[in-house]
Amino acid sequence: MTDGDNLRARRERAVTDEVLASFSDAESPRLKELMAALVEHLHAFAREVRLTETEWDLAINYLTEAGQISTDRRQEFILLSDVLGLSMLTVGINAPAVHGATESTVFGPFFMQGSPQIERGGNIAEGVKGQPCYIHGVVRDVDGAPVPSARIEVWEADDDGFYDVQYEGDKVQGRGHLFSGPDGEYDFWCVLPAPYPIPHDGPVGRLLAASNRSPMRPAHVHFMVTAPGYSSLITHIFVEGSDHLDGDAVFGVKPSLIIEFKERVGFPAPGAHVDGPWVEAEFDIVLSRSGESSR
Amino acid sequence: MTDGDNLRARRERAVTDEVLASFSDAESPRLKELMAALVEHLHAFAREVRLTETEWDLAINYLTEAGQISTDRRQEFILLSDVLGLSMLTVGINAPAVHGATESTVFGPFFMQGSPQIERGGNIAEGVKGQPCYIHGVVRDVDGAPVPSARIEVWEADDDGFYDVQYEGDKVQGRGHLFSGPDGEYDFWCVLPAPYPIPHDGPVGRLLAASNRSPMRPAHVHFMVTAPGYSSLITHIFVEGSDHLDGDAVFGVKPSLIIEFKERVGFPAPGAHVDGPWVEAEFDIVLSRSGESSR
Repeated sequence: MTDGDNLRARRERAVTDEVLASFSDAESPRLKELMAALVEHLHAFAREVRLTETEWDLAINYLTEAGQISTDRRQEFILLSDVLGLSMLTVGINAPAVHGATESTVFGPFFMQGSPQIERGGNIAEGVKGQPCYIHGVVRDVDGAPVPSARIEVWEADDDGFYDVQYEGDKVQGRGHLFSGPDGEYDFWCVLPAPYPIPHDGPVGRLLAASNRSPMRPAHVHFMVTAPGYSSLITHIFVEGSDHLDGDAVFGVKPSLIIEFKERVGFPAPGAHVDGPWVEAEFDIVLSRSGESSR
Repeated sequence: MTDGDNLRARRERAVTDEVLASFSDAESPRLKELMAALVEHLHAFAREVRLTETEWDLAINYLTEAGQISTDRRQEFILLSDVLGLSMLTVGINAPAVHGATESTVFGPFFMQGSPQIERGGNIAEGVKGQPCYIHGVVRDVDGAPVPSARIEVWEADDDGFYDVQYEGDKVQGRGHLFSGPDGEYDFWCVLPAPYPIPHDGPVGRLLAASNRSPMRPAHVHFMVTAPGYSSLITHIFVEGSDHLDGDAVFGVKPSLIIEFKERVGFPAPGAHVDGPWVEAEFDIVLSRSGESSR
């Protein structure tokens, strides 16, 4: 290292120290902690890569475009967090990590408030394109006791790989919520989900293309399960044998979440009139108690 | 560290490694380098602060709002970069650091393409509220030779602390460009700039308020100076004695850029009809040659 390099390094460090000092009067200790770590890492990133002014300018425009393409029905920053693995990392950081509890995965950008409630055995996918699919199981705690009245929210893409919110208009399809019964049991009909690309006509798609990364996700159904006294569970079930299980664009796959979706031909379909084949998946859900964190 | 902590640390590291691997096929080596460093630091940040899902959600909404409040005339991500010191750090990283060259500072969000050209001695601030101010100097290279025909772009806030683009309508005032003469000389009229708050009615303002940080900047005039064969210079001159010189919201102050603005009463104003007092500032600009980087 030359004297010039040393001088430069000291000058650059001085900028970082000045910025850190500016956050030292934040009233919230947590905000102070977050901003200090953010500034340290943001500055270390820029110093290490010797960020050029052109790259800085590209980044400003990239983030602006990500904000501007977002709407009530599209969230580009969630996608960006997803493809950078930040979402999956945050899930891991916050997972209760209780032995035996169902594992979490990414929330994704397609959850919507206000889904319709269905009865147990009801259909969240009335009129949705795809093969009928019956999903059922039991909600339990880590000791095996049933959890009744758990709220089970599910959402999924149709056979063309699109969620309702990706279509024109305000249709609500392929999403709903129900409650587990007295013995923790739940069941509902949907359609067999298909693999799909995350929306890739915006900044996130450009990043994936420039990185030779596929935008595809393996077939899955989203679950969010909540019950008083238990940690919320945000997860998917993945269709065993689906394409892209080994290359999920958002890093969401965990082996424990890959479920067999069994072809059923000639079996009577529980509580539904189904002509032709259907599929069945069994998914038992294990919740950990709030605040529980031993392994 | 318990076994559980070790297991958790290994799992979290595995997410980061998976994301790093996903960028390994990027065609551009520079993109690969940038994304690798970005992912490392972004993930290290989240792991170190144990980012909660609520905080993640706040960050997603914060960035979205920053994009959505931005327009052709307002750039919230530049402001964010400025108040996080990233802008000033990037300026430092890219400064040619040639001994004797004029120092750089932040670009800021108020530059606009297409400013009017003025003659030497002209006025960029016709009709702008503020005390008449005459700025002049010589553009030279580091060896003292004059640089003729250098393009000097200047922009400033008015006496109320606002740039033209912060007003309703499309007025262009308080900005312009001119060219240095055969001996490198330049001069123009403007108004004495005032300290002002950066726009703080958006996400950046909320961050500053929560951090007990002032949004104020000391009084300054922006310069961007370009000439063939020379490195572009982006800088300000700051008004000596201005408030907030020791607490610039965007960390832009450098001692070498603080200039005396001298009160002139009774002196004839060069090339202008000024009733009453005016101020005069002399600012010699020293450019380094393109690619020059020895100290």
